[in-house]
Amino acid sequence: MNFVSIINKKKLGEELTREEITAFAEGAATGAVPDYQLAALLMAIRLKGMNARETTDLTLSMLRTGDVADLSAIPGVKVDKHSTGGVGDTTTLVLAPLVAACGVPVAKMSGRGLGHTGGTLDKLESIPGLTVSLTEERFIQQVKDIGLAVIGQTGSLAPADKSLYALRDVTATVDSLPLIASSIMSKKLASGADAIVLDVKTGSGAIMQTVEDSIGLAQAMVDIGRLAHRPVTAIVTGMDQPLGTHVGNALEVKDAIDVLAGRTRGDLLEVSLILGAKMLLLAGRTADENEACSLLEEAIASGAGLEKLRQMIRAQGGDERVVDDLSLLPGTPVRREVSAGCRGWCAAMDTTALGLAAQAMGAGRLRKEDPLDPGVGFILPVRIGDEVFPDTPLCTLFARTEAEADQAEQAIRAALTFAGAPVGRPPLWYAMVDGEGVKRS
Amino acid sequence: MNFVSIINKKKLGEELTREEITAFAEGAATGAVPDYQLAALLMAIRLKGMNARETTDLTLSMLRTGDVADLSAIPGVKVDKHSTGGVGDTTTLVLAPLVAACGVPVAKMSGRGLGHTGGTLDKLESIPGLTVSLTEERFIQQVKDIGLAVIGQTGSLAPADKSLYALRDVTATVDSLPLIASSIMSKKLASGADAIVLDVKTGSGAIMQTVEDSIGLAQAMVDIGRLAHRPVTAIVTGMDQPLGTHVGNALEVKDAIDVLAGRTRGDLLEVSLILGAKMLLLAGRTADENEACSLLEEAIASGAGLEKLRQMIRAQGGDERVVDDLSLLPGTPVRREVSAGCRGWCAAMDTTALGLAAQAMGAGRLRKEDPLDPGVGFILPVRIGDEVFPDTPLCTLFARTEAEADQAEQAIRAALTFAGAPVGRPPLWYAMVDGEGVKRS
Repeated sequence: MNFVSIINKKKLGEELTREEITAFAEGAATGAVPDYQLAALLMAIRLKGMNARETTDLTLSMLRTGDVADLSAIPGVKVDKHSTGGVGDTTTLVLAPLVAACGVPVAKMSGRGLGHTGGTLDKLESIPGLTVSLTEERFIQQVKDIGLAVIGQTGSLAPADKSLYALRDVTATVDSLPLIASSIMSKKLASGADAIVLDVKTGSGAIMQTVEDSIGLAQAMVDIGRLAHRPVTAIVTGMDQPLGTHVGNALEVKDAIDVLAGRTRGDLLEVSLILGAKMLLLAGRTADENEACSLLEEAIASGAGLEKLRQMIRAQGGDERVVDDLSLLPGTPVRREVSAGCRGWCAAMDTTALGLAAQAMGAGRLRKEDPLDPGVGFILPVRIGDEVFPDTPLCTLFARTEAEADQAEQAIRAALTFAGAPVGRPPLWYAMVDGEGVKRS
Repeated sequence: MNFVSIINKKKLGEELTREEITAFAEGAATGAVPDYQLAALLMAIRLKGMNARETTDLTLSMLRTGDVADLSAIPGVKVDKHSTGGVGDTTTLVLAPLVAACGVPVAKMSGRGLGHTGGTLDKLESIPGLTVSLTEERFIQQVKDIGLAVIGQTGSLAPADKSLYALRDVTATVDSLPLIASSIMSKKLASGADAIVLDVKTGSGAIMQTVEDSIGLAQAMVDIGRLAHRPVTAIVTGMDQPLGTHVGNALEVKDAIDVLAGRTRGDLLEVSLILGAKMLLLAGRTADENEACSLLEEAIASGAGLEKLRQMIRAQGGDERVVDDLSLLPGTPVRREVSAGCRGWCAAMDTTALGLAAQAMGAGRLRKEDPLDPGVGFILPVRIGDEVFPDTPLCTLFARTEAEADQAEQAIRAALTFAGAPVGRPPLWYAMVDGEGVKRS
């Protein structure tokens, strides 16, 4: 197949055939197509788009370049959940134990953080001793035993996506709806789940910053699911501010434990309940959304969710005592309380900047091989719409050095906007998209 | 400089600064920017365009990555001429001797053919013994001695363009107006001429197939000349059929000699006169276009033009006797006369297909390192608008084998369309573009 003619077709805005898209995915996975031709096609796709059929073909072609996890040994409907990434977004650590506690098996392969968003694996690894590297056999056995496992990818899932993602990152072609949708869905389908719940973030900390673009992405992924015969429900949720109040690896584990223990409520819990309820519905645990929420709430009240997390930590070699004693999580030499220093209503947050501030403290990676500091980060209790006074506590910094704390304080102050008049609170979610269509909040 | 942010700007349709464009050209020349990033930017430029200022900056940046020929030792105004490439387009071999015979020095660096269009150097090399590889010193001395030299590039002219052109060829980004304009003009400005006449071809055998696109390209190159302080006149001429009746390297030398000897008239002569007259005007030889044409016609009638070609062949080591004895040019084992075989009016030609037919016979290259057969090609006396009968001679093939002649005959027949009613002749030229604006025919 002549790859120049494939690039040329997309450049002219024409639709690519399944064979052409397969040549693209396989060429990326094997290296048979040179990077400069892949890059030219990626830019043509970024600027000319792909329709639902092409996007699904790209997803399935990328999927077929690698291994597909076989979860059939686990009884029941396996429902996966994926977030497009945000700051303080640790819903997996909340909802996975809750859903498992409700009797629905959760066999989840998760990712590491890159850029300004944290990764579930990095957070879990802040628990002393815990490993996320399990063989597929041990992974499946753990889910059969306790109904819950969260690990890193086993085998080589969608290697075409891995190559293309690395190339997109250095060619300014990350922000393409069909490329984002096919990248996420190829990995999710390769993870072997029967159904998928997607949390599509929208706002200043998200890959898609407008609600309409986010709904478009959600729709594209639901379409792929339909064409690939896997039920997908997508929820567009707000990322105009960090989801949880805690940002940083160990800090987010602490936040999740506080929520599971019933000590904390707030947006992290609310979004976890929405997503978790959809997982229970897709798994067939109940057909009623309100009942699904009640089941999850009961798992908090009874302590069953926290118990499930404890079981998982133990099964994966971690120190399960952290569940009862948060001081066993990593800390930092420097802890600083910062107050607002002004009077007004919190009107907006540059959430990406907040994520980058945490990254600069050592909570995130600039490059894949960078080490993380599990203890660093910050707690930011202030929410958009809150009124503050000069001495209202604004945030608590957990840093390695006073200099890094200074830098973080400056970055966080710069990321927050205060207004002289009351400001409304942004909605928790904006739209639900599934096979039935789009429902707006 | 962060190259991803440069790609991103152009992707969003924004204007690049001079510094950003310089980083692009230098990165291409030195290899400091990887090919996949260059490819992504080329596609973004192809789809989002560049304005006149950006295109000129790219031209000058590419120019500065290499050597610039210094022709100041040659007295007088040096005028270069460039064609965007066509089939049977051997105007250089006609007009360079005529212009030189009129007392205007012609110091021309020319190119080799690639794709379906022939190169002047390849045609010249079909003359036994002739070399096109001269040092810059010998080149300049020859122009001082006889007023004429046509050679290959000396030194390294615009290496950034060389890298980018090779990359465009394999990433479907050849057909970008600003990239074509800057590629041509960077090399022309590097060749050291004081003024430039451009022959922008339009039609089925040209890089730009519509008149409006061709005028746009002409305008872009005239704009670059204005911003680079070099007078440029561009003429948009027809390439709906081969310009001369002869297609192939030695055959086109023969055609040029026939024209210079006054034995043949036709479109090749007419376009050569138009372009040559513009060269005399830009050189200040005369201010009157009609007088310029008369001077060129006189150089044919007096034999001064043919004599100038003879001098150049001798100076470059070739067998000057070819000027009087065309049988000294390379021939082929197979010569075949083909008749029309049908009745009608020649209505259209797929000129690119005719060029490819000659290339398949061995007249052109598929890859830079391919050898050429100087003798092969065809004479196609039929022009659009001509009436033919079944036994009208259609073409004469010069081939290496009967099988290649069969293939060429089939390809040429397929490239010609005959109509049942009279058809008008296409114009020789469509527009003249210079600092004063666009004048249409």
